[in-house]
Amino acid sequence: MKTDLDAFLEAHDLDGLLVVGPAQHNPAMTYLTGGAHLTAAWLIKPRGQAAVLFHNPMERDEAAKTGLSTRNLADFPWQRYWRQAKGDASLAQALRLKAMLETVGLTQGRLGVTGRVDFGPLHATMQALASIAPDLEIAGQAAHDALLAARRTKTDDEIERIRRMGQITTEVVGRVADFLSHQRGKNGLLVKNDGQPVTIGEVKTLINRWLAELGAENPEGTIFAQGRDAGVPHSTGDNAAPLALGSPIVFDIFPCEAGGGYFYDFTRTWCLGYATDEAQALYDDVRATYEHVMAELRPQRLCRDLQRLTCQHFEAQGHPTSCSQPGLQQGYVHSLGHGLGLDVHEAPWFSDLETNTDRLEPGVVVTIEPGLYYPARGLGCRLEDTVWAKPDGSFEVLAEFPLDLVLPVKA
Amino acid sequence: MKTDLDAFLEAHDLDGLLVVGPAQHNPAMTYLTGGAHLTAAWLIKPRGQAAVLFHNPMERDEAAKTGLSTRNLADFPWQRYWRQAKGDASLAQALRLKAMLETVGLTQGRLGVTGRVDFGPLHATMQALASIAPDLEIAGQAAHDALLAARRTKTDDEIERIRRMGQITTEVVGRVADFLSHQRGKNGLLVKNDGQPVTIGEVKTLINRWLAELGAENPEGTIFAQGRDAGVPHSTGDNAAPLALGSPIVFDIFPCEAGGGYFYDFTRTWCLGYATDEAQALYDDVRATYEHVMAELRPQRLCRDLQRLTCQHFEAQGHPTSCSQPGLQQGYVHSLGHGLGLDVHEAPWFSDLETNTDRLEPGVVVTIEPGLYYPARGLGCRLEDTVWAKPDGSFEVLAEFPLDLVLPVKA
Repeated sequence: MKTDLDAFLEAHDLDGLLVVGPAQHNPAMTYLTGGAHLTAAWLIKPRGQAAVLFHNPMERDEAAKTGLSTRNLADFPWQRYWRQAKGDASLAQALRLKAMLETVGLTQGRLGVTGRVDFGPLHATMQALASIAPDLEIAGQAAHDALLAARRTKTDDEIERIRRMGQITTEVVGRVADFLSHQRGKNGLLVKNDGQPVTIGEVKTLINRWLAELGAENPEGTIFAQGRDAGVPHSTGDNAAPLALGSPIVFDIFPCEAGGGYFYDFTRTWCLGYATDEAQALYDDVRATYEHVMAELRPQRLCRDLQRLTCQHFEAQGHPTSCSQPGLQQGYVHSLGHGLGLDVHEAPWFSDLETNTDRLEPGVVVTIEPGLYYPARGLGCRLEDTVWAKPDGSFEVLAEFPLDLVLPVKA
Repeated sequence: MKTDLDAFLEAHDLDGLLVVGPAQHNPAMTYLTGGAHLTAAWLIKPRGQAAVLFHNPMERDEAAKTGLSTRNLADFPWQRYWRQAKGDASLAQALRLKAMLETVGLTQGRLGVTGRVDFGPLHATMQALASIAPDLEIAGQAAHDALLAARRTKTDDEIERIRRMGQITTEVVGRVADFLSHQRGKNGLLVKNDGQPVTIGEVKTLINRWLAELGAENPEGTIFAQGRDAGVPHSTGDNAAPLALGSPIVFDIFPCEAGGGYFYDFTRTWCLGYATDEAQALYDDVRATYEHVMAELRPQRLCRDLQRLTCQHFEAQGHPTSCSQPGLQQGYVHSLGHGLGLDVHEAPWFSDLETNTDRLEPGVVVTIEPGLYYPARGLGCRLEDTVWAKPDGSFEVLAEFPLDLVLPVKA
């Protein structure tokens, strides 16, 4: 949690933190500012002291909304540093940054630097800073890790925001189910009243409209993939393709709060009208594994143990898994889930059976998403829910929705 | 243009380019891949050779859609490098990257690195790469600059995509105008049929819904700011605030293609029902300056000359400007415009009167957006259109829309 940040800075041997970039779609900055509309800012937090937000003059009102201590960059006029740097932009930026660091007393030690920005210019600035502030050591990974460690366990307020995104997500999924159920089957395809096939692109447009209406944004797109595409976990589906009856559709939706805040992540697999025997059998295996894993969630359990358990369950059903065959492209080919918050994928992780020490600490929010993929057979199936490891030791799916495979359609 | 990339790599003394991160909402990667659904990839382009895209196994189909030469990261198994690095993740990543660079023959020289990603981990990887590949020099700013230089002039295909975003944008602005005009004035506020005031938040929800419906995304939000907020250029407006009659609303909308592609940028200033004398006078000055500047666009003209011209025009009207008073917070306080493409703000730039050598080269797309701001008087006004400098020397507003100030409402 954010209140643990100083402890994590200490654990990562950091004397301070510099977070760079906009406050939206930039998890580190969003986390520390609350997501005000800042297009570019510099947040400096010395360990053990409050953070200071350096903002553009035009964004003074938005900066004030963060409740942080603020400094106007008008007090650090660009032209001054530009002249001092004789027109070297990276050096000018470094000189300006050095002056900002000095105002908060950060002139030496180990400075963690991160933020989701264009890498090139900031890298050049950091190279220049290293040359003019040799007593500062720039640490990147440690800054990222300290922030991810803080973000890993969620406050009640964060849970409420993720839960609300879960409600929006399942509301949209319900509307999609409704829409599809009100169309009819004809010659193996789903068609509208006018006899034209429903395409994947149409469904995605509806999804985006409904998400926007309900206050969400969909920056990473939606997976709505049928047949062979459903058998490739990250295939997003072919917008021009008509929807066929019987064949499994993997519908994986992962929107965030409008303005770039907390995510939700959710998957169902649907067959329209009926399921082929092959699709039903695949679904039954995934469903059984899903139920098995859900029943095995325990506080502090190692994530990698759950990944191993999932592999064992799938292998007992006769499926190949990446636990035994790394690099596999059919069967169970990904990890069981991932943490979720301001990033759709964040700590804790379920991959890396050998080295991963991540656990289901109370407070984490993770996805549980077993799946099976047979692209050559035109088959894929995944079921995913987002789960909160509650402080009382229980686990809660943050947005309930039926797991059913077959979605009836009109005759 | 992309076909000039090798020339820009040479001009920036780069032997190759490494672009990192997802292919969406990451302009450098979107530019070079076309925006396939890749959540994380490494694109390596040696100067004078075709780029190679290194992708995750699960994203092989999306990678193939780019039409680029591809390599599956399954051939560079993480565990191998992790063991070799004895569990040091940054070193493991650097070893893996070095192996990728070797496959395309990049083992020495100046490597430009960029991409919109979390800075910390990539910085640590680059530090580790420098230690194991001492013949490679890592250059950040040059990589960014070379790509921005290529992106500065647009192909016909890019213009069509921006133009389509302009059509979507003005369609949404028209729907907002329609919606507002169908409400009525009461006691100085705009109210709905049920007598409740229309809030800024409601208008923004409609904007997001309509954008999504029309195939756009709104990752950076919308400015819909009235009164004092309109007087602070980057204030986005208070969602809870009711809309008042007479007082100027700055409506600045800058959506992009769904999936994180090309942007449009557009501003109108509206008074509902009528304009106060002060608002009308401010608008008249901005409108006259807008018309004046639009008539002064010439191919190859220095952008800073247009900025100076804008300041002179405003000063002749009696307004303070940041040309004479840097750091100013009222009057004309920003630059005239900016380039636009995969970033809402990109080259060419209109700021920095002393050093900026950017010009209106044929092929650039820029915004022209003069504005005046008097927050203490509860006033702000800006007019903005996106303009293409055509190869034939003429200039074209990519989406026409009336400039009118007063939006009639029902009595």
